[in-house]
Amino acid sequence: MQILKERIQKYGKNLGHGILKVDSFINHQVDPVLMDSCGREFAARFASINATKILTAEISGIAPALMTGLYMNLPVVYARKTKPITMPDEVYLTLAPSHTKGRMVELIVSPEYLAGGERVLIIDDFLASGATIAGLVRLAEAAGARVIGIGTLIEKIFEGGRELLTPLGIPIESLVCITTMDDGKIEFLK
Amino acid sequence: MQILKERIQKYGKNLGHGILKVDSFINHQVDPVLMDSCGREFAARFASINATKILTAEISGIAPALMTGLYMNLPVVYARKTKPITMPDEVYLTLAPSHTKGRMVELIVSPEYLAGGERVLIIDDFLASGATIAGLVRLAEAAGARVIGIGTLIEKIFEGGRELLTPLGIPIESLVCITTMDDGKIEFLK
Repeated sequence: MQILKERIQKYGKNLGHGILKVDSFINHQVDPVLMDSCGREFAARFASINATKILTAEISGIAPALMTGLYMNLPVVYARKTKPITMPDEVYLTLAPSHTKGRMVELIVSPEYLAGGERVLIIDDFLASGATIAGLVRLAEAAGARVIGIGTLIEKIFEGGRELLTPLGIPIESLVCITTMDDGKIEFLK
Repeated sequence: MQILKERIQKYGKNLGHGILKVDSFINHQVDPVLMDSCGREFAARFASINATKILTAEISGIAPALMTGLYMNLPVVYARKTKPITMPDEVYLTLAPSHTKGRMVELIVSPEYLAGGERVLIIDDFLASGATIAGLVRLAEAAGARVIGIGTLIEKIFEGGRELLTPLGIPIESLVCITTMDDGKIEFLK
């Protein structure tokens, strides 16, 4: 997706160790118009999969997931990392390593909003190691739902997430693919 | 705002102690179409204040803020509650009590995305005690920015937030106002 690629080229920062800082338009400051375009693009790419729900992880998955949900007319559930007092005692919970926090985090979904038989589209900001998305897949499976597509804004293909998720046999769509971040560079898939 | 009020009447749950559970359309599962309508409404109400940026707090302020930003064509900054590794060492940080967590939480904004001279519109999901929003006001002031409007989806007028914020002398818009939640009821301002 050209406009997202150009934004990364212009404002993305390679902080080393595979960390791509996109805080000026995705992760701390968000550009709603850009997210709107990304949501529209996901909706087009996943138009035919007949999803019934979008699942993402707080925090930075919310913006692209919300815009995708808008164009697909689907509810969005975001897995919480801490259990709020409004959530029932019995929940679906899994652990996933956080790349930017350097530790395991919990991913929690209430059974109220993820039911057996749902067809789940996972949307997130990054596909890196795939660990967070694999965690979301486990939550969906625990609920008896079926994940039928995965969409991410930015894939770092050198971190192996696609290999981890390919056995699911479902479409995986990334709007931008980065091939290497070695030596301070940010190189895109041609 | 009638559609939001109807949604609360139909799906909101009074959990006691002033806690309104709206997890099925705002706080865990989000209805993007409803949020789109709310964003459109905020954009109309704040059309003339000449804001340059929208400020909210993660997590549940993100959806209404994003949709407002879309219709006002403004960037959205969400204050973080933990400092990610992509953030510089020097930040704007304040503490605010969390109603649903029962403890103080940090609100952190990077100086990269909140600058002196900005005209800030604060958007959040709830106006209750006003403590979180007052924290966002302090962050904006620390950055030399000026808060020129406050918009929330749901105001619990019995918790006094409006009294706390009125001295700011700026417009405070809530899409729905709840007058009491005593005895398991949810009553709306006529």
